[in-house]
Amino acid sequence: MTEGSEKSGGLKVIDRRRFLRTGLAAGGAALAGGSQMAGSAQAVDADPQNLPPNVADWSHYLGDGVDMRPYGTPSEFEAEAVRRNVAWLTASAESSVNFTPLHKLDGIITPNGLCFERHHAGIAEINPAEHRLMINGLVERPLIFTMEDIKRFPRENRIYFLECAANSGMEWRGAQLNGCQFTHGMVHCVMYTGVPLRTILEEAGLKSSAKWLLPEGADASAMTRSVPLEKALDDCLVAFAMNGEALRPEQGYPLRLVVPGWEGNMWIKWLRRIEVGDEPWHQREETSKYTDLLADGKARRFTWEMDVKSVITNPSPQAPITHGKGFTVLSGLAWSGRGTIDRVDITLDGGRNWQTARIDGPSLDKAVHRFYYEFDWDGSPLLLQSRAIDSQGNVQPTKDQLRKVRGTNSIYHNNGIQTWHVRSGGEVENVEVS
Amino acid sequence: MTEGSEKSGGLKVIDRRRFLRTGLAAGGAALAGGSQMAGSAQAVDADPQNLPPNVADWSHYLGDGVDMRPYGTPSEFEAEAVRRNVAWLTASAESSVNFTPLHKLDGIITPNGLCFERHHAGIAEINPAEHRLMINGLVERPLIFTMEDIKRFPRENRIYFLECAANSGMEWRGAQLNGCQFTHGMVHCVMYTGVPLRTILEEAGLKSSAKWLLPEGADASAMTRSVPLEKALDDCLVAFAMNGEALRPEQGYPLRLVVPGWEGNMWIKWLRRIEVGDEPWHQREETSKYTDLLADGKARRFTWEMDVKSVITNPSPQAPITHGKGFTVLSGLAWSGRGTIDRVDITLDGGRNWQTARIDGPSLDKAVHRFYYEFDWDGSPLLLQSRAIDSQGNVQPTKDQLRKVRGTNSIYHNNGIQTWHVRSGGEVENVEVS
Repeated sequence: MTEGSEKSGGLKVIDRRRFLRTGLAAGGAALAGGSQMAGSAQAVDADPQNLPPNVADWSHYLGDGVDMRPYGTPSEFEAEAVRRNVAWLTASAESSVNFTPLHKLDGIITPNGLCFERHHAGIAEINPAEHRLMINGLVERPLIFTMEDIKRFPRENRIYFLECAANSGMEWRGAQLNGCQFTHGMVHCVMYTGVPLRTILEEAGLKSSAKWLLPEGADASAMTRSVPLEKALDDCLVAFAMNGEALRPEQGYPLRLVVPGWEGNMWIKWLRRIEVGDEPWHQREETSKYTDLLADGKARRFTWEMDVKSVITNPSPQAPITHGKGFTVLSGLAWSGRGTIDRVDITLDGGRNWQTARIDGPSLDKAVHRFYYEFDWDGSPLLLQSRAIDSQGNVQPTKDQLRKVRGTNSIYHNNGIQTWHVRSGGEVENVEVS
Repeated sequence: MTEGSEKSGGLKVIDRRRFLRTGLAAGGAALAGGSQMAGSAQAVDADPQNLPPNVADWSHYLGDGVDMRPYGTPSEFEAEAVRRNVAWLTASAESSVNFTPLHKLDGIITPNGLCFERHHAGIAEINPAEHRLMINGLVERPLIFTMEDIKRFPRENRIYFLECAANSGMEWRGAQLNGCQFTHGMVHCVMYTGVPLRTILEEAGLKSSAKWLLPEGADASAMTRSVPLEKALDDCLVAFAMNGEALRPEQGYPLRLVVPGWEGNMWIKWLRRIEVGDEPWHQREETSKYTDLLADGKARRFTWEMDVKSVITNPSPQAPITHGKGFTVLSGLAWSGRGTIDRVDITLDGGRNWQTARIDGPSLDKAVHRFYYEFDWDGSPLLLQSRAIDSQGNVQPTKDQLRKVRGTNSIYHNNGIQTWHVRSGGEVENVEVS
């Protein structure tokens, strides 16, 4: 606020806490849109010809020119919109995770600089001129490709979410982490550009016995996962760009396997080799990890598809309600590895009453969907939950429903409904309701 | 290539220049896709059990951990993928432009750090906590909004291109700038999140005499443009996010007007005020600039909509063909301020023969479209052109057709067909053909 306008008697800052509340039914009533808000606004006694100078100090000086930032960066006032890791979670930062700040984002695109990271041996820093992709095993013609070779195949562009199988993993045993960045921040969504894996396999020529692939990363962990041939021929991409530009180093630069809808660890980064075989390999990273140990000691394996899931990103523990009572925008993300999202339901009272959220923006196969629910908050405590339903009719379950079936041994594939408790002061905390 | 695999007799690097050429008709024949390429590949005599170690040096060491880059940056090997300005083009860098590196990008999303800049007084560095948006003039209730107020209205998410009216402006007088970054780089395309301007105007209440708006920026130039009310009520957004995160400072942080399909200077950055009036204002930036002076001395005004346009981004002067003869991926962008793109035609011979390009990725209203054309290059010189047709049936004209109608006084609204001359060595230059 400039001093000029505060001093002016002609026009004053509207306190939306007041005027939005006026004329609206209290407590959780959903609003259709702008018209009802407009109806609740209080007119201001102002002479349009006698305006205050809404001119701040920064308007008086030349700013930086176009030669200052060849590659731009966010405003210094956005310093909180960063990835965060949790030091105690893992033994080292090289084999660890950090988290997308979901509570600071909107829409369905994640900026490249904020896509969560999960490494098994740190970030391989690769010179693309020296990088190679080898195809070997049950193929007619074993091949090695340069990056220039890869870019001579026909390309596709697709927006997909990528979720770590362990996203929300700490929450299996109850509310543990306070903030959607930490509970749900191992998901991002970008546009990939790449070559269909199908095209590259056709170039090498599959033998009739070929049934499985083993993509391998060029990092120090030489990360590998067994991928069934059917998926590889369906929609996998060998990607070299994300959101228009080259992949970021931490996302597999210069080459990454894209496995749409499936758990993130299969999206091999720094992709250097694809072996074709006739059975799964059962490598370390698909036995000691990335299988789901059930209560009876047996393990679910090949749990590739990411289940239908959603989370409310605002309000949330890192994004409390700071404006007090009145018109409130609730927002969140929903996604499914099995298609698009048909519907998202919202409850403000821990599941007693459900309303349909508004999904806005493109609805794309295996991409995140952005939803909103606007309501008039009366200042009483809330128990917020979202429940997504995908295009196959799968309904996001409660955590208790999941635990009954799967126990609590595994940290993987928790797509349970998340609850945020909003206090009357607007503070939000991670809780469980049963 | 690692030394190990080069030395191996079992498997060798495939020279795609050779095997892609084998078995293909020479000279400009379009290929349907991977199957034909596979048919042309030469088998390599290799024993899959005796593989060379495709293991580079970087595979032997731990890389950086997840605590190193809270906000990520591109690989050091991508240092050429940056915005560039042209120092001689303007008197100062504060009132100037830089250009999106289109030749380094793919897909339809522009990363925020690479969106071109056009400033009239440099970048206003605004503290969002102190920023205000005022609505005044022919409204029932003059209002001032904080950023928190704006974020309490229902939001929308839309992917739109933004093009400067002067994009390709130097080319009116013939081929001037050597590189699509400079000839066509004043365009970008991102997902915006914002509040429909309609909603905010309804909150203030329009008087019946309201016909025009004057949005005003908070930079030192106090940039203003007259916008007809019809457009404001149709699809304009008051946006606070781009590609998921807060607007970048150079793109109007914390608030920008989004005017879909219309020339970029109307998308007022650092938006601080919207005055409602009953006629256009004819401010400096819409009379001395952003009108189109015709050959007879009259000026076209209100040339808001951006015409159907396309450009081949690869190959182009900054992105020559380096792989020699054989299978070649041609790529480019097409867009129209009047809807989607229905078709893009490609010629390799300066307009004698035209083929239909493949459009890939989402086709969204008033967004860029990515097209590809794959062909087998026989090494002879080429004259590459693209011609876009939009969903209204508008066809991108030649530059000569434009000059006949509009003369060459103005630098604005050149949507003429661009020609690249490819030499037999693969070098590319900006030329004109008539």
